[in-house]
Amino acid sequence: MLEAVRRAVDAFARLPGVGRRSAERIAYRLARDPSGRLAREVVDAVEGLCAGTALCPLCGRVTESGRDACRLCADPDRDPALLCVVEQPEDIERIEETGAFRGRYHALMGKLSPARGEGVRQLRLRRLVERVQAEPVREILLALNADVESDATCAFLRDMLAPGGVRVTRLAHGIPAGSGVSYADPVTLSRAVRSRQDV
Amino acid sequence: MLEAVRRAVDAFARLPGVGRRSAERIAYRLARDPSGRLAREVVDAVEGLCAGTALCPLCGRVTESGRDACRLCADPDRDPALLCVVEQPEDIERIEETGAFRGRYHALMGKLSPARGEGVRQLRLRRLVERVQAEPVREILLALNADVESDATCAFLRDMLAPGGVRVTRLAHGIPAGSGVSYADPVTLSRAVRSRQDV
Repeated sequence: MLEAVRRAVDAFARLPGVGRRSAERIAYRLARDPSGRLAREVVDAVEGLCAGTALCPLCGRVTESGRDACRLCADPDRDPALLCVVEQPEDIERIEETGAFRGRYHALMGKLSPARGEGVRQLRLRRLVERVQAEPVREILLALNADVESDATCAFLRDMLAPGGVRVTRLAHGIPAGSGVSYADPVTLSRAVRSRQDV
Repeated sequence: MLEAVRRAVDAFARLPGVGRRSAERIAYRLARDPSGRLAREVVDAVEGLCAGTALCPLCGRVTESGRDACRLCADPDRDPALLCVVEQPEDIERIEETGAFRGRYHALMGKLSPARGEGVRQLRLRRLVERVQAEPVREILLALNADVESDATCAFLRDMLAPGGVRVTRLAHGIPAGSGVSYADPVTLSRAVRSRQDV
């Protein structure tokens, strides 16, 4: 493989959801276009993304660069008593799409992950504690993922936040919509049983 | 979605193997990194790819920029009587990895695809005819894909090339290695039956 192709494959394979074979296909797709138009579009898009976006200093959401707070943090109609803690900024977009949450957000920028060298210091925890003290937060919804490291992060956050008198909740785990009992893995199913609800 | 994010998603979703949801994950992954290091790496990689590569004027393979012919075309040990026709330059790399072919290559840069507006004029056909006339080609191996448009392209190339007295072959179709009869779709299986071989 040519050096320029290999370097491109290395870079593309670092992107989420892109394996080495996909990265190779992308590299050749760009290299075989003599007009270079798609390559130019990609470069412009990445540079535009970096120049046009920043993280909201309050919640960590990806927002227009040059703003003090994102649209959600600045919205007086959002319930300041409800704070939703997520791992990554893009999780905020997913929850917003549902329309099921009307409070505010806080992105941790990761989770406790000893295997990847991510500990307490890498997370936006001090900012979270400051917000809980400064804002009229009554409930913190931990909207973290459903894996071992996220579970450990949930337990850590609960132990850190609950003594302050705030209610700490987390997303329900169970059978995903449109799926069924025979498709659920044992962990999902046992959680669905333990969290069973009255009908 | 922010305008800068949407534009990035549009550009990334044009890359092969990247759907809109993947493109979104990539955009947020780049936007949420305050250091911008990954974004810089991607931009450098794409620009390095464009500056460092070109298409071999003979076979169409992706090669170092500024060369008259790629390493394969310039190699006197490759059999000039065997010419392998592929759809895309990266298919050459796949076949080279097998070590099963010792001839030369010719990339069409596509296939006959009326649905995408790709016709005879978009393909590198004139260059192919010139090569078959100028080089001592005795067999042309059509290493095209296994779909309807590639089949039509194979038929077209056979009708165009065979009258010149050259032998035109194509890749065998059948059960992929490591797979089995019950996993094969009906088209693959019927081709495997029709192409059955003595043992």
